[in-house]
Amino acid sequence: MQAIAPEIRAAAERGFREAAFVNDVGIALLDCGAGWCESTLALSPRHMQHTGVVHAGVQTTMADHTAGTAAITLAPPGHYVLTSEFKLNLLRPARGTTLWCRAQVLKPGRTIIVVESEVYAEEGGKRTLTSKLSATMVVMRPQ
Amino acid sequence: MQAIAPEIRAAAERGFREAAFVNDVGIALLDCGAGWCESTLALSPRHMQHTGVVHAGVQTTMADHTAGTAAITLAPPGHYVLTSEFKLNLLRPARGTTLWCRAQVLKPGRTIIVVESEVYAEEGGKRTLTSKLSATMVVMRPQ
Amino acid sequence: MQAIAPEIRAAAERGFREAAFVNDVGIALLDCGAGWCESTLALSPRHMQHTGVVHAGVQTTMADHTAGTAAITLAPPGHYVLTSEFKLNLLRPARGTTLWCRAQVLKPGRTIIVVESEVYAEEGGKRTLTSKLSATMVVMRPQ
Amino acid sequence: MQAIAPEIRAAAERGFREAAFVNDVGIALLDCGAGWCESTLALSPRHMQHTGVVHAGVQTTMADHTAGTAAITLAPPGHYVLTSEFKLNLLRPARGTTLWCRAQVLKPGRTIIVVESEVYAEEGGKRTLTSKLSATMVVMRPQ
Repeated sequence: MQAIAPEIRAAAERGFREAAFVNDVGIALLDCGAGWCESTLALSPRHMQHTGVVHAGVQTTMADHTAGTAAITLAPPGHYVLTSEFKLNLLRPARGTTLWCRAQVLKPGRTIIVVESEVYAEEGGKRTLTSKLSATMVVMRPQ
Repeated sequence: MQAIAPEIRAAAERGFREAAFVNDVGIALLDCGAGWCESTLALSPRHMQHTGVVHAGVQTTMADHTAGTAAITLAPPGHYVLTSEFKLNLLRPARGTTLWCRAQVLKPGRTIIVVESEVYAEEGGKRTLTSKLSATMVVMRPQ
Repeated sequence: MQAIAPEIRAAAERGFREAAFVNDVGIALLDCGAGWCESTLALSPRHMQHTGVVHAGVQTTMADHTAGTAAITLAPPGHYVLTSEFKLNLLRPARGTTLWCRAQVLKPGRTIIVVESEVYAEEGGKRTLTSKLSATMVVMRPQ
Repeated sequence: MQAIAPEIRAAAERGFREAAFVNDVGIALLDCGAGWCESTLALSPRHMQHTGVVHAGVQTTMADHTAGTAAITLAPPGHYVLTSEFKLNLLRPARGTTLWCRAQVLKPGRTIIVVESEVYAEEGGKRTLTSKLSATMVVMRPQ
């Protein structure tokens, strides 16, 4: 596994800490490395859809933010990334105590970084894949 | 404009009121009719990305939920809809005091309903299109 | 309607003429202007799916190439565009004598241009919307 | 690896043989099993874009048709599948002598089957991932 520079790790942590909505929802960075990132979310009733499963918006917020961080680990220092678009497939109802997300860069690049995220719901020690995101990230030069 | 039955209107209102995450974010139903739905969100600091613009997750929650409600207006009474997938394009930074969303069914159907949502940021009386969602909704029979 | 420079019009025509697969399928440029492009295809049995409707691959080839040309009309002279990704929704079975496609730029930009294409099947003077594409185009500097 | 019934294998082969456009482009079934399918295409000049790489439309035709066949292997006998939507990411320029595609079901289901396809270009014994598709297939009852 390729190590990442301390300033990139710091930027990833800052991204989770300083993104108000990500904090508000409760999503936390677990770990990241060159081209990947993992995050977690302790579920509570406010994350739910009226059908009692986790709302697609929660899963998207997690999958998108984790994907953006995975992209940042491969961008030149000082650069940042913006999400241009993503597609999310909702595969199974998300029920459980925790969501766990892993984002992995599918294709690095100087202008465009393509990232995939998988979101899993954890219940009783079992992880179920509940959604998958495919995102196009645009690398932005420092302003 | 085609009227919708009172029980469908009631189901749409219930969907916004009873979806915990939609309530938590602060998204409210404005109006709906046969094949469309409009919603609004008063923006506050907690909705933001660390770059100071509205987080993609907020826009997605709004666009997806409003799209689902637009689909419900065309589903048989008692049926409900589940999001199968969506794609969101982030077109411009979302800044302002309010988000406004309009969802419109592109193709009705008995099994699949395709819906598009547009999200606009409002500032100083000016509306700017900030994101567009295209979603596949699956019509589910009452259980 | 905004006029486009003759060299951009020439580039659009060249794109249709010189793209071997587009020619092979039989897709032809109808017209283009600033931010839009229209194309046509006379249908024959070889374009079909085994179910007797036009194959998604034909509609995608048309929708993508027409979208790329719409993007080129807004790119700086000499620049070209590459498709980064697209989503296609197949809305209705495509049957008829002709396909007609119109692509329209949803969001211009220096790096990314977002374009939507609609494909219609024509039969007996009636046009039916059969598919809709949403594409991310990347603007490339002359090499 | 789970075996598939002979009639499902026969349906997969028929799908490639009887889909006129797939034949016209030159795409051939390699093999399939429960939840997966592989296909190949010998490249010739007519498959190209004007930039000299394989046109997105060729890759989409291959990725979509192979995905549909992977879905059919999990559908009840006699049923067929229709593509509802797909997203294709173009990751690298596709150059070489042959395209190779593998489709894998991500989530089976009675109504919706989600499939992913990867397209690789082969040149000098080396395979390069050039595009990835994510598709929603709808299972249709025999008519």
